[in-house]
Amino acid sequence: MSLIPKSHPRAKSLLIREKLVDGFDNGLVAKEGLLAQGRGEAFDYLLGEKTSKAAMQAIRAAASQLLLAEMPVISVNGNIAALCPKQIVRLSKQVKAKLEVNLFYSNEKRKQAIIKTLKKNGAKEILGSKNTSSKKLPGIDSARRIVDKDGIFVADVVVVPLEDGDRTMALRRAGKTVITFDLNPLSRTSETANITIVDNVTRAIDLLIIESKKLSKKNQKTLQKIISDFDNKKNLRDNVIQIKNNLTRRAKIA
Amino acid sequence: MSLIPKSHPRAKSLLIREKLVDGFDNGLVAKEGLLAQGRGEAFDYLLGEKTSKAAMQAIRAAASQLLLAEMPVISVNGNIAALCPKQIVRLSKQVKAKLEVNLFYSNEKRKQAIIKTLKKNGAKEILGSKNTSSKKLPGIDSARRIVDKDGIFVADVVVVPLEDGDRTMALRRAGKTVITFDLNPLSRTSETANITIVDNVTRAIDLLIIESKKLSKKNQKTLQKIISDFDNKKNLRDNVIQIKNNLTRRAKIA
Repeated sequence: MSLIPKSHPRAKSLLIREKLVDGFDNGLVAKEGLLAQGRGEAFDYLLGEKTSKAAMQAIRAAASQLLLAEMPVISVNGNIAALCPKQIVRLSKQVKAKLEVNLFYSNEKRKQAIIKTLKKNGAKEILGSKNTSSKKLPGIDSARRIVDKDGIFVADVVVVPLEDGDRTMALRRAGKTVITFDLNPLSRTSETANITIVDNVTRAIDLLIIESKKLSKKNQKTLQKIISDFDNKKNLRDNVIQIKNNLTRRAKIA
Repeated sequence: MSLIPKSHPRAKSLLIREKLVDGFDNGLVAKEGLLAQGRGEAFDYLLGEKTSKAAMQAIRAAASQLLLAEMPVISVNGNIAALCPKQIVRLSKQVKAKLEVNLFYSNEKRKQAIIKTLKKNGAKEILGSKNTSSKKLPGIDSARRIVDKDGIFVADVVVVPLEDGDRTMALRRAGKTVITFDLNPLSRTSETANITIVDNVTRAIDLLIIESKKLSKKNQKTLQKIISDFDNKKNLRDNVIQIKNNLTRRAKIA
């Protein structure tokens, strides 16, 4: 039974929150994942809870990058599995990317719950389980550096939605092209990734699937042009400006 | 054992977070409380993780208001009990305010855990337990309107740290003077309260205790002047401007 009063003005955001709380109850989400969701909510609120023009540009660049990749891998954590398991599996099929479960707070039981959820939502092969072989990324402390030797370790393009800054940096140092979803345009993850989609993943993932489908008909040169026209630093600045404008409007500052 | 790598650039914020996670493990904090903490973290980050001049003004006004109150009550929820139990008890003694446990997501077991924590930290009498009599605040849905008949119900000044907008509005409608701690200067709670301290409660509570001690030597007229000079709407705007300036600086926007 939902505890959210229907009269509450933030009912929509509270319902997404409930998905995550359910994910927590089902062993997918870590306690720290609930906190991370809270941080995301605050930034989403400041961004106006809609997909900005800047985010749409990042989504187009991300779709192009995924379509051009030789060996794309999508890293899945507990929050993603709780929020949009169906869409993440759909995206992986659309762009022929492998799925790898990779957790910040590693925990085998939670990993298995995530794998189960992904399978229930149509995933065939899932890397990062105890039955696959692992390798270590250099330059990051022990618990968090383990990646699948047939997945992230050999990937050229990695999608890391809702990722930690340290790990994003380790992936870049390992030579990967990194695509991330991050609602904080100032985070280290946002600044470190090649393409940062500053949007709520529950909104942006559907748009990324649609764009990937649309752009799959384009030739390589067109896709490369979209990527080279994309400037992540400028895009992040545009998102910060968006937040500033929203603050001005809401606080009615002259 | 702490899972936080010491090398992490946000170790301090992560350690506060861990207090809350411990509070969750000890039955003080609701899952929704973890999410709320995450939202607070985001705003604290945007505010520069320090007490602003505007926040300091609000703290002075709050101290004056508490010292002038005939029947002040401090409402305690799970997050407060997890983050700063010792200080909240100290504040209640300093300004002779009653303590009342009052939860957004009501739960008798959690309530008892909070009462136990407050007692362990020196609290004598705690209202809002099942042994005290309750009354209902008008204008708010059922589960959340229950208050203690010897506490919030008859209080003239109520401190509601980390409160929900609906309840803050119900308290105002019931004629209470409301003091709150809220890191989001745009929230309904912030806008509805008489005095909003836009600061991390773990920093601001110590300052509020110090100011209450200092100002306790002043006469009534001086305290009244401090309160009448305080403009909550202007104070909130100053905090929004602070966030905007921090965004400009961090994003290096010209």
